[in-house]
Amino acid sequence: MKSKGEEFLPIVGLHQATCCSETKYVGRDDLLLMILDKGSIISGCLTKSSAPSAPVMWCRKNFKSTLKPREPIVILVNAGNANAFTGKEGDIACQKKATSLSNLFNCNNSNIFFASTGVIGETLHAQAIINKLPILKKSLVNNNFSSAAAAILTTDTKTKICSKQFIIDNNVVTISGFAKGSGMIFPNMATMLAFVFTDYSIDKKTLNQLTKKAVDNSFNKISVDGDTSTSDSVFVSSTRKVKVKKTSNSFKDIFYQNLLAVMVNLAKSIVLDGEGSKKFIEIEVKKVKDKKSAREIAFSIANSLLVKTAMAGSDPNWGRIVMAIGKTQKIFNMEKLKIFVQSQLLTKNGRVVKNINEENLKKELEKKYIKIIVDLDSGKQSFTAWTSDLTEQYIKINADYRS
Amino acid sequence: MKSKGEEFLPIVGLHQATCCSETKYVGRDDLLLMILDKGSIISGCLTKSSAPSAPVMWCRKNFKSTLKPREPIVILVNAGNANAFTGKEGDIACQKKATSLSNLFNCNNSNIFFASTGVIGETLHAQAIINKLPILKKSLVNNNFSSAAAAILTTDTKTKICSKQFIIDNNVVTISGFAKGSGMIFPNMATMLAFVFTDYSIDKKTLNQLTKKAVDNSFNKISVDGDTSTSDSVFVSSTRKVKVKKTSNSFKDIFYQNLLAVMVNLAKSIVLDGEGSKKFIEIEVKKVKDKKSAREIAFSIANSLLVKTAMAGSDPNWGRIVMAIGKTQKIFNMEKLKIFVQSQLLTKNGRVVKNINEENLKKELEKKYIKIIVDLDSGKQSFTAWTSDLTEQYIKINADYRS
Repeated sequence: MKSKGEEFLPIVGLHQATCCSETKYVGRDDLLLMILDKGSIISGCLTKSSAPSAPVMWCRKNFKSTLKPREPIVILVNAGNANAFTGKEGDIACQKKATSLSNLFNCNNSNIFFASTGVIGETLHAQAIINKLPILKKSLVNNNFSSAAAAILTTDTKTKICSKQFIIDNNVVTISGFAKGSGMIFPNMATMLAFVFTDYSIDKKTLNQLTKKAVDNSFNKISVDGDTSTSDSVFVSSTRKVKVKKTSNSFKDIFYQNLLAVMVNLAKSIVLDGEGSKKFIEIEVKKVKDKKSAREIAFSIANSLLVKTAMAGSDPNWGRIVMAIGKTQKIFNMEKLKIFVQSQLLTKNGRVVKNINEENLKKELEKKYIKIIVDLDSGKQSFTAWTSDLTEQYIKINADYRS
Repeated sequence: MKSKGEEFLPIVGLHQATCCSETKYVGRDDLLLMILDKGSIISGCLTKSSAPSAPVMWCRKNFKSTLKPREPIVILVNAGNANAFTGKEGDIACQKKATSLSNLFNCNNSNIFFASTGVIGETLHAQAIINKLPILKKSLVNNNFSSAAAAILTTDTKTKICSKQFIIDNNVVTISGFAKGSGMIFPNMATMLAFVFTDYSIDKKTLNQLTKKAVDNSFNKISVDGDTSTSDSVFVSSTRKVKVKKTSNSFKDIFYQNLLAVMVNLAKSIVLDGEGSKKFIEIEVKKVKDKKSAREIAFSIANSLLVKTAMAGSDPNWGRIVMAIGKTQKIFNMEKLKIFVQSQLLTKNGRVVKNINEENLKKELEKKYIKIIVDLDSGKQSFTAWTSDLTEQYIKINADYRS
């Protein structure tokens, strides 16, 4: 039905408010409060980093405990300070904010979720944030996606929003989400945050399952610089306002396909807005024995500085792609390997194809979208990774521009 | 005893000659022939890439077969063409060169070794090289390290040579070696080659064992861009001219320490000459439960774009170091973690140390040599990695300067 990139379709039962916390940024909102009506559910995926931020540890605990169904769900997000590697003080900051939110919204700690993005290792001014909560509560409105998406940004150059609307059993169901980007974030580190909402009356168990699957097939396919944040978090919530009484696998599938589409759109937007990035590169590794190898090879190519700089220079340097495959130490038959760049077959029978029109290919590589296909012809598994090119601008952002 | 960086001490029984192959470079030698007198032995470590070059596959076979002790050992090296991913033609090129060398020097194929570095996927002009062999044979001289070290370079900015001389049981023993660099090599890929020679009458089994150990503790500790070449090769040979009749563990140890010192010197020279690199960074990860984790954490830091760009910008950005540790997903106690940069303790009790003089630290980071220590306080194992910073110059070399 409807599909809007960079616009949003509202979700009944979701309330949002933003303001400037006055702890870091000047002249922009950097604090976002979101309230979901009682009866809502929430699911999520958090960074696998073994040095997670205080809010990630808080949410990890809450995702394991049981929601109070008669209480609202509260999500508080701030940009500018990641509250990561802040020791016990970081946990205390979460606890303080939770106590205040719990009083304001009559809910248990288990219904409160946090996300923070920005500088690592600096004390979060919890009290300054707490002081803003009553104002935020007063300014809550039903859906304020544009302001919400803007309030969570750090070095991103634009907001990332995506909505889908579709029919399940004669009911109009909506999924709307927004995200902020990866790539190194001034002044400290990469963080990917995404918040996705729906009104579909899905059960908690199914939402957990579909969230994990959709994250694996969207956000877990992207890499800007191969680094993993201490704060990466994806939250998927449902207000369950659109009651679909029947359940069926086909309904589940329709919902999943749309959830996936929203997440893929957001994931690609993050790559496209990667620091210093000029190009979007899709790397499809196919006909591999096992999925794990396909994934490893795809990310070996996606994270290779040599491949990424070649793409920045519009250089069809397939030798670097062979190197990146070889460096995984996965055994494969070089004779069977086929590499395609922008649909042009480059290798066959263990060597380069003769008579490639390099001039044409260079022109094709000047485009914004680049597609690399690696065909190992040795199995049935495949994996696609999305990345950006590596430009001098990335180095400038990350080396020279820190105050 | 004597120790010469960038100078060489001769090895009796080693003969070298260089010339221009006229297949790639103009006005410089790019072909190197080395002959070791009969009775010599050779050992080596080759790239673990699963897309190895034809010469690597040739040598892999020869290292497994038995040397003919009554015949010389022949090593032929060319720069400019890696003879990698060249299909059957690449193997045939090796075979042809071997046939010609075998006739010229009256030796079996099993005594012939190749190394090639340069562009990937282009046909090696074997005949052009073969045509030069008689001239090379005529111009062989006992030790010509400077010319040899220069002939194997590609985008390196200088030769890398190191020699050590020491006493074993009243005999003067010499180890001399040279190497060429990593970092992406115009126009196709990074390749690390190293050739080390000694005159010590070591046995083959011990040489194999010590070579592997020394490579693990030198060349396997470096990373310029995290990429692995299809051609990386380290050869260690002995002419066995200095006869030490007794064998003892202490002799073995003296020899090993000197072999290691030569290899460490060459490995560090490669990092120092890394493309676009301005700084040498040593990352020591200590007090870790197991060696594998220590190694993984050290290389996660060494290969992190965010850490490498921070170092380029003289930015004591310890948050990025925490991120790089966390991204390995190795469980550790953040409360116990200590990070030192240029001897300054930066983290304690799970958070940043208060009152760090950032200005002083920034000045310390402007130095050419940077030392990062990560202390996990959770075991007895350690690992040290060596890397370079990541500058805009690297991107320029690898993206913009390809013709």
